[in-house]
Amino acid sequence: MPPRPPRRDDPVRQRSLRDHNLALVLRHVTAANRPPSRAEIAAASGLTRATVSTIVDELIVGGLVAELEPVSRSGVGRPGTGIVPAGTGPAGLGMEVNVDYLAVCAVDLTGAVRHRQVRRLDQREHSPAQTWQALGELADQAVAAVAAQGLTPAGGVIAVPGLVEGDTIRIAPNLGWQQVALPRPEDLGGPRDLPLDVANEATLAALGERHATGLRSFLYVSGEIGIGGGIVLDGELFGGSHGWAGEIGHVTIDPQGPDCHCGSRGCLEQYAGEEAIRAAAGLRAGGAVLADLVDGAGQGSAPVLDALEHAGTALGVALSGAVNLLDIGTVVLGGHYVELIDWLRPAIERELARRVITARWAPAKVRASALGSDAALVGAARAVTQAILDDPARFLATRPAPAG
Amino acid sequence: MPPRPPRRDDPVRQRSLRDHNLALVLRHVTAANRPPSRAEIAAASGLTRATVSTIVDELIVGGLVAELEPVSRSGVGRPGTGIVPAGTGPAGLGMEVNVDYLAVCAVDLTGAVRHRQVRRLDQREHSPAQTWQALGELADQAVAAVAAQGLTPAGGVIAVPGLVEGDTIRIAPNLGWQQVALPRPEDLGGPRDLPLDVANEATLAALGERHATGLRSFLYVSGEIGIGGGIVLDGELFGGSHGWAGEIGHVTIDPQGPDCHCGSRGCLEQYAGEEAIRAAAGLRAGGAVLADLVDGAGQGSAPVLDALEHAGTALGVALSGAVNLLDIGTVVLGGHYVELIDWLRPAIERELARRVITARWAPAKVRASALGSDAALVGAARAVTQAILDDPARFLATRPAPAG
Repeated sequence: MPPRPPRRDDPVRQRSLRDHNLALVLRHVTAANRPPSRAEIAAASGLTRATVSTIVDELIVGGLVAELEPVSRSGVGRPGTGIVPAGTGPAGLGMEVNVDYLAVCAVDLTGAVRHRQVRRLDQREHSPAQTWQALGELADQAVAAVAAQGLTPAGGVIAVPGLVEGDTIRIAPNLGWQQVALPRPEDLGGPRDLPLDVANEATLAALGERHATGLRSFLYVSGEIGIGGGIVLDGELFGGSHGWAGEIGHVTIDPQGPDCHCGSRGCLEQYAGEEAIRAAAGLRAGGAVLADLVDGAGQGSAPVLDALEHAGTALGVALSGAVNLLDIGTVVLGGHYVELIDWLRPAIERELARRVITARWAPAKVRASALGSDAALVGAARAVTQAILDDPARFLATRPAPAG
Repeated sequence: MPPRPPRRDDPVRQRSLRDHNLALVLRHVTAANRPPSRAEIAAASGLTRATVSTIVDELIVGGLVAELEPVSRSGVGRPGTGIVPAGTGPAGLGMEVNVDYLAVCAVDLTGAVRHRQVRRLDQREHSPAQTWQALGELADQAVAAVAAQGLTPAGGVIAVPGLVEGDTIRIAPNLGWQQVALPRPEDLGGPRDLPLDVANEATLAALGERHATGLRSFLYVSGEIGIGGGIVLDGELFGGSHGWAGEIGHVTIDPQGPDCHCGSRGCLEQYAGEEAIRAAAGLRAGGAVLADLVDGAGQGSAPVLDALEHAGTALGVALSGAVNLLDIGTVVLGGHYVELIDWLRPAIERELARRVITARWAPAKVRASALGSDAALVGAARAVTQAILDDPARFLATRPAPAG
C-alpha cells in the first residue's frame, strides 16, 4: 500500500532532502506527457539544473530511468535528451486468486503490462496450499518471461477476494477461506527472494484504476460473484482504520431481504451479485453466466433485462447512500459490470438522481473501469512499482546489485 | 474550515520556516497537559531554545499566548514560567440558526466557552432577513459580553441545518430556505467588520467534537428534527468534493419506505428523525417531544420504547452501511440522541454486529457526544479559533492593532 504522505507535524528533517528530491524528479519523469529534459525537470520542480543532473544520473545508475538518444533541434544550445521511466530494471508482479481462476501479470515502471497469464481453475476444490503451489508455477513463468525482456521483479502482491489485515486473509467467503496466512516465497515454490504482500482485490483494482486513469476521487465497485469496492480520495487510496473500507457489497438494501452468506440480510450482493442476477434472470447455474447475460440482454430477453434493471436499482440505492456519505463525484463500475453497464446504468442513474440529496447541483458520474476485468491484477502489479516510484531512495538502498 | 495540510508535492519553501514554527510552538502550548516552559517546548518540538523564545515573545505580543507568573522550584536554574493560550485576545463567535431557536456563543483560544445565549424563536415563521436581524442582536450582545472579559471576536461562523456550498445555503429543508446567501455583516446589524462564514451544523458539530475529545476518526450523527452527520478522519474533517459529506439522514433504509421531504423515499430521517419517533410513539405533535420521549421511556411506556427500538434499528442499518464503507471505529451520537442513547444503543449495536462484515474483529464503538446539544454552536466558534491556532502567522499579519 502507498506510504503515508508526510503530515504537517513531521519535522522536515525526517525525510532527507536527497530522498525527497529523488522522488520529486522521478515523479516529474513519470507524470510528464512527453519525456522531459533535465532542464525541463529543473524548471518544473524548482530544483537547480545541477541538482537535477546529479539525481537523474543516480536514477539511471539505479535502473529507474533511462535517457533517450539526443534529438537535434533547430535552436541554440545543446540538444536536450529526454528522460523516461526505465523499460528494463524493476518490475512489479501482480497475482490474483479468484473463485474460478488464477492470474499473474508483470508491469514495468512505465505501467506497461509486459506479461499476463490467466489459468482457469476452481479454487473452491483446493486447499490454500494447493492454490499457492499453482500460483507459484504461474509466477515462475512470469519471472522467466520478464527476465527475457530485461526486467527483474522487485516484489509481488497477491489480490484476493476477501478481507485482509496485515499478513492475514481474515476471510474470503467465496473461496471458503478463513484465517489464511500470506504465503512465504517457498509456499509458492519460488521465486525465493521475492517480497510478497497480499491485499483485497477491489482495493487493488481501485488503485490500478487510479494510476491508469489519473482520476483523483472515485468510488470503485466491482461485481463478479462477490461485490467489492475501493475508495480513492484526492489521489490516495482510502483504506479506513484497518484497510477494510469500501465494503459496499454488504451495505443493506432491504433490512428484511434475503439471507447473505456474511450472516446479515438484504446485502447488495444478494441483489446485484452475479449469482443473484443469474437466478433472477432464470439462467442455468454453472454456465458462462456473464456471456449468457450479455447475450440475453442483447437479444432483448425480458427476464434478463428485468434482472439487470433490478440489479441496477439495488446498485443505485447502495451507491446513493455512499454518495450521500462521501460526497464523491464519480462512481467507477468494474469487473463484470463493465460488460453490463449499458443495462445497469439507467436504473443506477435514476436512483442517484432520486436519492442523493445534492444530485441537482452536482450529479455523480457513472463510468466503466478503464482496466476492466484486469483491474485487480494490474493494480496489484502497479502497487509494487508505485511503491518504488513513491520512495525510490528506499528501493535503491535495498535492491540487489544490478545484473550485467 | 481548517486549512489543508501540506502535501508531499508541496515545496518546503511554500510555507516559510517562521510561519511553520509559529504554528508548531502554538500547537505545543495548546496541546500540553500543563503549561509548558520555553525549555519544555524546545525539547518537545526539536527547535532551539533561542528560536522558541523568539517565537513565544512574538505570540505574547500578538495576544495569542500568555506567560504565567514564575513558580519557584526546588532545583537548580532559573524558575520556569509556564506558557498558556491567551484567555484574552481573539475569540471565536459561533452562531446557530435552527428550526426553533437561535443561539450565539464565544470561545477563547483555550476552547473555553466565555459566553452563551439561546433564544427560542421559530424560524419557519420568518424570512432569512428577519432571522439575520435577530441573530445580529444576539451577536451584538455576545461581542459586548466578551469585550468586558478582554476578548475581541476574530470572526464568526454560522451553523445552519442545510447544505452549504461556498457562501450559499443551497437548501435548508426544515427551515424552508433555498439559495440563501451568507449574510453580510450589515445584514446582522453589526458588528460591522467581523469576517463571517457559514457551514452545515453537523459538520461543525463534528469539528467541535473532534477538538473537545481528541478523537481522531469518527462518524458523528446528530438527530433532532433533521438528521445530520459529519466525518472526521485522522484528525481532519472529511468534507468530500463540495463539503457535503456525511449526509447520513438521507441514506435509504427501505427503498419502498415513506416519502421524504428531500424527494426520495425511505430515508433514515423518516425512521429516526424526531418527528418520526414522535409519531411512532403516538405522542402529540408540537409538544416538548424530546422531554416526552425521555419521560415515556423512563416510565416504561411500551409505545415509546417500541418507537425508540425501531429508530435504533434504522440507525443501526444506516450506520452499518457507513462502517462497511468507511471502516471507521467510532460512532458519536449527538443532538437529541444524547438523551436517548440508552434506549437506542441496544438496537444500534445489534444491527452493527449483524451487518458490519468486519464486526467480529473490530466492532465499532457507539458513544454519546461530549458537547451534547451545544456541539454545532461550540464547533462553529471553535472553527474560528482553530483557524488561528492552525495558522497564527496569517492571523498576526491581518489582525487589527491590539487595543490598549
